[in-house]
Amino acid sequence: MISNRESKFIKSLQLKKFRQLENQFVVEGAKNVLELLQSDLEVIRVFATNDFLSKYQERLSEYSEVLTEVKEADLKKVGSFTSNNAALALVKVPEQSEMDSSQSILAFDRIKDPGNLGTVIRIADWYGFKQIVCSTESVDCYNPKVISATMGSFARVQVHYADLGEILQKSKHVYGTTLQGDNIHELKFQEPAVVVFGNESEGLADDLRQYLTQEVFIPGYGGAESLNVAVSTAVFCDNFRRLLKFQ
Amino acid sequence: MISNRESKFIKSLQLKKFRQLENQFVVEGAKNVLELLQSDLEVIRVFATNDFLSKYQERLSEYSEVLTEVKEADLKKVGSFTSNNAALALVKVPEQSEMDSSQSILAFDRIKDPGNLGTVIRIADWYGFKQIVCSTESVDCYNPKVISATMGSFARVQVHYADLGEILQKSKHVYGTTLQGDNIHELKFQEPAVVVFGNESEGLADDLRQYLTQEVFIPGYGGAESLNVAVSTAVFCDNFRRLLKFQ
Repeated sequence: MISNRESKFIKSLQLKKFRQLENQFVVEGAKNVLELLQSDLEVIRVFATNDFLSKYQERLSEYSEVLTEVKEADLKKVGSFTSNNAALALVKVPEQSEMDSSQSILAFDRIKDPGNLGTVIRIADWYGFKQIVCSTESVDCYNPKVISATMGSFARVQVHYADLGEILQKSKHVYGTTLQGDNIHELKFQEPAVVVFGNESEGLADDLRQYLTQEVFIPGYGGAESLNVAVSTAVFCDNFRRLLKFQ
Repeated sequence: MISNRESKFIKSLQLKKFRQLENQFVVEGAKNVLELLQSDLEVIRVFATNDFLSKYQERLSEYSEVLTEVKEADLKKVGSFTSNNAALALVKVPEQSEMDSSQSILAFDRIKDPGNLGTVIRIADWYGFKQIVCSTESVDCYNPKVISATMGSFARVQVHYADLGEILQKSKHVYGTTLQGDNIHELKFQEPAVVVFGNESEGLADDLRQYLTQEVFIPGYGGAESLNVAVSTAVFCDNFRRLLKFQ
């Protein structure tokens, strides 16, 4: 059972303002909640259906004190996704740790769409990037749509918010995709690098472009004018890992 | 001005049932409408704001008979996207042409999310694939969210619906991404090929997998269990084009 008060509280966390005020965010859906339980994140409450509880009894055993059984209908009512029939958790926003500049980092200039940010977190996780940095104007990584699109990868990739100019300025290898760059299939890369991707509609800001040590072009063969930011990220990462291995 | 009757008609086309009944679909937003005007598709009506009309006067000249000036507020009211402040067009659904098996084709097994289908149409266009084929259970390519996500590529890529088993059976080179396949970075490919991608949550159906002449794996380096279908499509296409060029 979710009380009216709890329900109101959970719904309030759909807004960044309340997430910041309460220092909590919501994780929804079986896959995301299961990944959460395996992570170091601090779980404050778990609401789950009887089905989910029986299926994952063992993994949930250490969370018994914060666990509440709820009906599927209640879960759908308080969550942001009508398709959630499994579980929802309240999680403490972790303290922002220092960025580790000895490892390569993916950087995003004004990434606005929560689905895009979630997808690039999943891509970063697939390609072994443990850190993402977004410009301060970007969408909040604890937005429910971001968490949902990560498919559990939010639990393994750190997302920082910072002035990208300052970071790029200090980095030795700064790669960025532009329409004027060199063919990615014919390049060599070095680590640790910062790889920066531009805003969905405006591309990379001019004041960031000046810091690129290598402009990179993903070759096209047809009529489309551009690729979306998540697609560019994936194609870049795939080539980056391939080229580091084979060069 | 959009009359009540027109408004009702346009809104009805958000549903597949009415698109099929009327044999029309809706194209929204500046970028998509501009690409439409340059295509061979049959434009039935264009509703556009004064700003859009003045900016693209020349390109719109041949459409004067089907053109109606409207207020931004009216456009937002009838469209599926609140952000559309430019134009909306009604378009005739083109007759399904024959598939050209002399060219490589991207195939999608039960692709369900309209944003994903739109994005893979855009990727196909970038990588020079002129044809996509979807299994008959897939989302309708004239869904407004599909059209929107294509960013104009709907005008250049043909989308067919068919029994994928029949198509794969007849093809000499059938590639598909699976978690058990060979590393894509180390393969060779041949054309014309059919490249098949599985459903968002269930992957490729077993009865299709039997037709693969080469299972392909996109190597991962981190914790994520999978990539989304649009990301897999892009990474596959990038490697496919690169390997065909350099092998």
